[in-house]
Amino acid sequence: MALNPAYEAIGKGFVQQYYALFDDPNQRPNLANMYNAETSFMTFEGIQLQGAKNIMEKLNSLAFQKINRMITAVDSQPMFDGGVLINVLGRLQCDEDPPHAYSQTFVLKPLGGSFYCAHDIFRLNIHNSA
Amino acid sequence: MALNPAYEAIGKGFVQQYYALFDDPNQRPNLANMYNAETSFMTFEGIQLQGAKNIMEKLNSLAFQKINRMITAVDSQPMFDGGVLINVLGRLQCDEDPPHAYSQTFVLKPLGGSFYCAHDIFRLNIHNSA
Repeated sequence: MALNPAYEAIGKGFVQQYYALFDDPNQRPNLANMYNAETSFMTFEGIQLQGAKNIMEKLNSLAFQKINRMITAVDSQPMFDGGVLINVLGRLQCDEDPPHAYSQTFVLKPLGGSFYCAHDIFRLNIHNSA
Repeated sequence: MALNPAYEAIGKGFVQQYYALFDDPNQRPNLANMYNAETSFMTFEGIQLQGAKNIMEKLNSLAFQKINRMITAVDSQPMFDGGVLINVLGRLQCDEDPPHAYSQTFVLKPLGGSFYCAHDIFRLNIHNSA
């Protein structure tokens, strides 16, 4: 495997596709297809989860219905196994809560012409937003 | 290579060591030892750099002398090549500037019993901190 020269488009495309599913409660369960059944890792607000089933249990437990999302930066880098590292910064408003800054880091791994999400770290920057 | 069970201690230890060098202008040039001469990537406020020399040119060009840093979260995950993914959130005050939230993502790769920094993404969340 080598560096994928399209890493920037892959990063931006993945982020767009991921949030289109995440932000629609009816489509959120389809995020399961983004993760590997066994090997994918997620850290959600400090809680560590492994495998699509455990990750989806967490994501499907989120109760908000309406998400207002503003992405402020997407930085991507190519990885030497053909994967892509992505860091997203943005602001997120759930239902009638106040908006919060957040950061989310993804590592995509190549799989049969496409990519799956091998690593996912999500944090609201509540203590950062003063 | 397999998952390194000490990923959490490795992540926290690296972050401590990295910022101890970064935050001291006299020691900052020693960060060169953290990066690979050819293959390490850094994205600094959206500017993409590759290789220890280019990365250090950028880091050594930073003019501030005094850094006041507060780390609010360090999330680490083990990677299947023996590496560690780290996401840091914190606040940073340079000289007499107002403090800013920031995020920094590292990917460490194993190398002869130690680790080097293969990927580094840094962003001040200026637009996030309202």
